[in-house]
Amino acid sequence: MIVEVVAVGTELLLGQIVNGNAATIGSALALNGFDAHFQQVVGDNHDRMVAALGTATERADAVIVTGGIGPTQDDITREAICSLTGRAMVRNEEYADALRRRFEALGREMPENNRRQADHPEGAEQLPNPKGTAPGIALLHEGTWIFALPGVPEEMEQLLNDHVLPRLRAASGDDGTLHSRIIRTWGMSESAVAHLLDDLYLASTNPSIAFLASGGEIKIRITAKAEDATTALAMIEPIEREVVSRLGSSVFGTDEETIEPVLVRLLADKGWTVALAESATGGLVAGRLTTVPGVSSVFRGAIVSYSPEVKDAVLGVEVGGGVVSEEVAVAMARGVRDRLGADVGIGITGSAGPEPLEREVGTMIVGVVTPEGEGVRTLRLPGDRERVRTYATTAALHLARLAVAGSWWKR
Amino acid sequence: MIVEVVAVGTELLLGQIVNGNAATIGSALALNGFDAHFQQVVGDNHDRMVAALGTATERADAVIVTGGIGPTQDDITREAICSLTGRAMVRNEEYADALRRRFEALGREMPENNRRQADHPEGAEQLPNPKGTAPGIALLHEGTWIFALPGVPEEMEQLLNDHVLPRLRAASGDDGTLHSRIIRTWGMSESAVAHLLDDLYLASTNPSIAFLASGGEIKIRITAKAEDATTALAMIEPIEREVVSRLGSSVFGTDEETIEPVLVRLLADKGWTVALAESATGGLVAGRLTTVPGVSSVFRGAIVSYSPEVKDAVLGVEVGGGVVSEEVAVAMARGVRDRLGADVGIGITGSAGPEPLEREVGTMIVGVVTPEGEGVRTLRLPGDRERVRTYATTAALHLARLAVAGSWWKR
Repeated sequence: MIVEVVAVGTELLLGQIVNGNAATIGSALALNGFDAHFQQVVGDNHDRMVAALGTATERADAVIVTGGIGPTQDDITREAICSLTGRAMVRNEEYADALRRRFEALGREMPENNRRQADHPEGAEQLPNPKGTAPGIALLHEGTWIFALPGVPEEMEQLLNDHVLPRLRAASGDDGTLHSRIIRTWGMSESAVAHLLDDLYLASTNPSIAFLASGGEIKIRITAKAEDATTALAMIEPIEREVVSRLGSSVFGTDEETIEPVLVRLLADKGWTVALAESATGGLVAGRLTTVPGVSSVFRGAIVSYSPEVKDAVLGVEVGGGVVSEEVAVAMARGVRDRLGADVGIGITGSAGPEPLEREVGTMIVGVVTPEGEGVRTLRLPGDRERVRTYATTAALHLARLAVAGSWWKR
Repeated sequence: MIVEVVAVGTELLLGQIVNGNAATIGSALALNGFDAHFQQVVGDNHDRMVAALGTATERADAVIVTGGIGPTQDDITREAICSLTGRAMVRNEEYADALRRRFEALGREMPENNRRQADHPEGAEQLPNPKGTAPGIALLHEGTWIFALPGVPEEMEQLLNDHVLPRLRAASGDDGTLHSRIIRTWGMSESAVAHLLDDLYLASTNPSIAFLASGGEIKIRITAKAEDATTALAMIEPIEREVVSRLGSSVFGTDEETIEPVLVRLLADKGWTVALAESATGGLVAGRLTTVPGVSSVFRGAIVSYSPEVKDAVLGVEVGGGVVSEEVAVAMARGVRDRLGADVGIGITGSAGPEPLEREVGTMIVGVVTPEGEGVRTLRLPGDRERVRTYATTAALHLARLAVAGSWWKR
């Protein structure tokens, strides 16, 4: 079953907002086994909307429109669907009344414009929107489904999950349900992961296995189709266990889990605190770690020792022999651990560019000291200053996780 | 002139990445006065790419394709353009040689696949890509411009600015050329800015004046249309001078200038160094400041004093009366200035959430100490933890700029 997303809104064309809805829907479609060949964006213009919807309904089995169903005059998705399908616009007076009562409950009078949100093409179903005032629309027209959803991401997502995906699954004669589990790894190449899981991958039909690489991570997605969620999850479980066992300490999380909360939780489990000494990353590791609510229970603080004198005076690091070396990275980790009274110290130094500093641009060095030992790793990272710093930040968080877990990395 | 963006990549359809490139290009097109009616996304599939490009070239005067020009087998934008235009594929052996030398300089052998990046449709121009291995493509085919740019955002943006926009401006030359100057301000509301510039705005036709609000900044865009760039710039100049004079110290930069390099330059002009003490922002200010190449000449370092003991022991700040106060922010600024031997100290403390810390969530306090004086400001910021921290980081950089420039802010 082929599904096409058409996002409506001049603000998307002007780049005032990014089309995150298309990505959210694309990901949900893929997870549910539907195909997507194209996406479109069109401005708040009646004729162009009709053209875009016409193209989409011709080549897809279902079209999901986002945006343009609000109360203002430039919200004309409802009108465009009527024009495309030759259907009349009808008003659901019951919904208009319910909407008015909703405004009254908030002590406000409903603006006349909002009555338009009770309009829909004849024969369409209105999809209740508990988070907003604009109901969605579902219309089966000449064998093609047309859905119109709000542009507000939270509202869109709820209607997508509650109303659109179930109808699409039913339409594709598939009363089963799809469930996925993502296993997130860091430190192995995609080809190394693929090699270790080769037999599982080749044997996988249901559940199926897929590899995704992004931002230095390799993700393994296991997807099962079954008549209900319990059965699907039970099918995923033994494969997940096997994958995790083969990939060992490279695995750091599942599904939406990122490295920051994982490291914080691991530190909390050990009862350890952490302190950072950053040079080339200039505070980025601290900035990432402190995105985690409640990090204060494990995070003592950081010293950004950008100038050599600060490395010397504040961290007690000997910098006579230069600042971009494994010795300095470890000394920074030791120094900050000591100065800030933490159990774990992390030190990062390097040459981030654009001009080389002692070593080639992209040479970044991470040292970690825990109550159980010390480790250091020299990385050679591609890209410009921004990319090198971002990659090194991610690497430092992952290397720290491994060290805290007792899985010391090789030199 | 109508321009259409076609983004290529199955990962976009699957929602693995968000189409930020379309927003970046859309915003640049709007700024340059070009119209956009549609955007498309298409997967890595030859026939569908040809179809999408065909639709775009029929209805637009120029088409900008992003993605699909890398070295791997699924990078087939070059082939799709050849199929669409009926042109042969030719190889630029000089570029292939240059690329091989680039790999050799990094001590690596060029994979055979990378030779494909020297391919381009006959008659097309290759656009040099200093940040990556894939050159862009510019082709004027039967009166329609077709550009192919890399999918990597930094590479895409550089080629867009250096090669695509100048060609589009030249192509639309019969209407004259458009030039814009953006004046960037921080610290005034949009309505206050509009009020101060009301008469200029009402009188503005050519040059025209527009206001844009984003990320706490208010930007004033002055756009002139003239037969050549010199004339346009001469038309902009007196209005720019008037706007800057009315808005005073709120103005911090022009065009693409961000606050970070502005602050670094201002410090360098004064011959001052800076040090940061961050609590609630957790290193984000240091991370932003160190994005600037060459910042080491003015930046001593930072202390992220996340735990109260670190504020006390490392910064010498008395924390008996709590940590979220104007006194503590100023004491942090003084302490870090002293400890790291800098001329300017900046201290940031606050309650970033999700749980309130002493004060209401969103209360963020910035203190600045320079050789000329001291200042402190309490901000009440909306949004969640991430937003509060980001806004506070931006505010700290701006308040520091004002202080260093001697334009102390009001309490």
